[in-house]
Amino acid sequence: MKLVRYGAVGKERPGLIDTAGTLRDLSAVISDIDAQALGRDGRARLAQLDPQQLPQVAGEPRYGSPIAHVSKMICVGMNYAEHAAETNAPVPQLPVIFMKATSAIMGPNDNVIIPKDSIKTDWEVELGVVIGETARSVSEEQALSHVAGYLVVNDLSERDFQFEHGGQWVKGKSCDTFGPLGPWLVTADEVPDPQNLALWLEVNGHRYQNGHTRTMIFSVAKLVSHISRYMTLLPGDVISTGTPAGVGLGQKPPKYLQAGDVIELGIEGLGQQRQQVHAHPENVRA
Amino acid sequence: MKLVRYGAVGKERPGLIDTAGTLRDLSAVISDIDAQALGRDGRARLAQLDPQQLPQVAGEPRYGSPIAHVSKMICVGMNYAEHAAETNAPVPQLPVIFMKATSAIMGPNDNVIIPKDSIKTDWEVELGVVIGETARSVSEEQALSHVAGYLVVNDLSERDFQFEHGGQWVKGKSCDTFGPLGPWLVTADEVPDPQNLALWLEVNGHRYQNGHTRTMIFSVAKLVSHISRYMTLLPGDVISTGTPAGVGLGQKPPKYLQAGDVIELGIEGLGQQRQQVHAHPENVRA
Repeated sequence: MKLVRYGAVGKERPGLIDTAGTLRDLSAVISDIDAQALGRDGRARLAQLDPQQLPQVAGEPRYGSPIAHVSKMICVGMNYAEHAAETNAPVPQLPVIFMKATSAIMGPNDNVIIPKDSIKTDWEVELGVVIGETARSVSEEQALSHVAGYLVVNDLSERDFQFEHGGQWVKGKSCDTFGPLGPWLVTADEVPDPQNLALWLEVNGHRYQNGHTRTMIFSVAKLVSHISRYMTLLPGDVISTGTPAGVGLGQKPPKYLQAGDVIELGIEGLGQQRQQVHAHPENVRA
Repeated sequence: MKLVRYGAVGKERPGLIDTAGTLRDLSAVISDIDAQALGRDGRARLAQLDPQQLPQVAGEPRYGSPIAHVSKMICVGMNYAEHAAETNAPVPQLPVIFMKATSAIMGPNDNVIIPKDSIKTDWEVELGVVIGETARSVSEEQALSHVAGYLVVNDLSERDFQFEHGGQWVKGKSCDTFGPLGPWLVTADEVPDPQNLALWLEVNGHRYQNGHTRTMIFSVAKLVSHISRYMTLLPGDVISTGTPAGVGLGQKPPKYLQAGDVIELGIEGLGQQRQQVHAHPENVRA
């Protein structure tokens, strides 16, 4: 099942994309796609629906983030060996995790705004894992049973803020518009193996990232298990599992996003995103 | 005004403490103490109440976190020079920030559980700042007008998880029970100068921390302004502003929390917390 939230910013309604690709409205069934809808009971209820009985949605509405009220977004750093190498970082012995402020989350095709005073805004296509069942110190064997589904994430990053503004990476990861999610939350039953997905990213039609989740250093199961030792994962929480090689920081010379650029990215079976890059109003000088 | 949430875990009701120290119920006025209640309109409405008209609450109920549905909790590291010295860290040139998972938040007097496999669980009394109005790149001069109020935070920390488990600090800050908040959210009008507050912490009656917010490296106004350059601060968000000297890591030899310990901490005018420390059930061995 492909779950979506559609409509204007802040007024999104829950929906699903049926097998024919038609958007259908879910508001008569659930109030939103949130922790309640994504928990065990909520998913069981959704699984019993006959999509053909739901009203079709006319037109081509905007898509928002497919999850409302994400309680935390955890990102994994250096989870592909070639990406660690391009950023001159060692291959980690344990998963490196950090947080992205949930205020950065937006729809998959909304505009990316280069932050005020940014000089190094960069892209990162990543497989996002959506928690469906509370996970607290779960084993690697049990981990995937706590997953509601998967989605595309662009983990936008400001490299100067991340590395040169004092301490921890969160400063470079949390700017507004730095967390496009979606277009769909694809339920786990439709993703038989999260380690068998191609993922890619292009800027202005040039392919910079061309990776595959089979080359992750730490698998999705390992990540969910590991992170759940340190914090309780709640329904609707998102884990972004790291990016393959090909980010702007890794180019020779490094290449960063500019106003007017178009980013397109996608993951096999999980859909595509497209963002136009805009300048921050206060960065536009005469 | 001293705002509280009282009652059983997950069933807290909003309340206030009147000038005589009596707990009164706010549920007929607001549904909870959340982003809506803490925003500009919500606070204006609360300020017009006559507490004497609100029903008194009988008995001595448990207090929960005075804020519901915190969207993010941002912590500041090394914000007192003597604390930086005791942890062998340089005095930072810019504020060091990191996140604590909001799943760690609990009431001020709830039990602290030493996490599974923890060997270095530590304490940190801190002044917490609660955002009242959305802050996006605000100036230092305007920053305090975005603050709804203040509260006591114990920024519990697992030093082995924080420093030895690969990368970023969030692993050592986010365990369940690592974020006691309260007892009260004291509105900003009752805290004329957040840089003029004594704060202290004792374990088993021994005073380990005895600090004062006038010795912060970066003031509350500076922190709100700085952080708002990197992420949008929303009503109900919490900034924990760093701890003064005297944490367990800084003792010679270092001293960490053990099951049976009692932690007491407080800040001038903001009330006190008291936590009993318990072992993790899976750490208790025959």
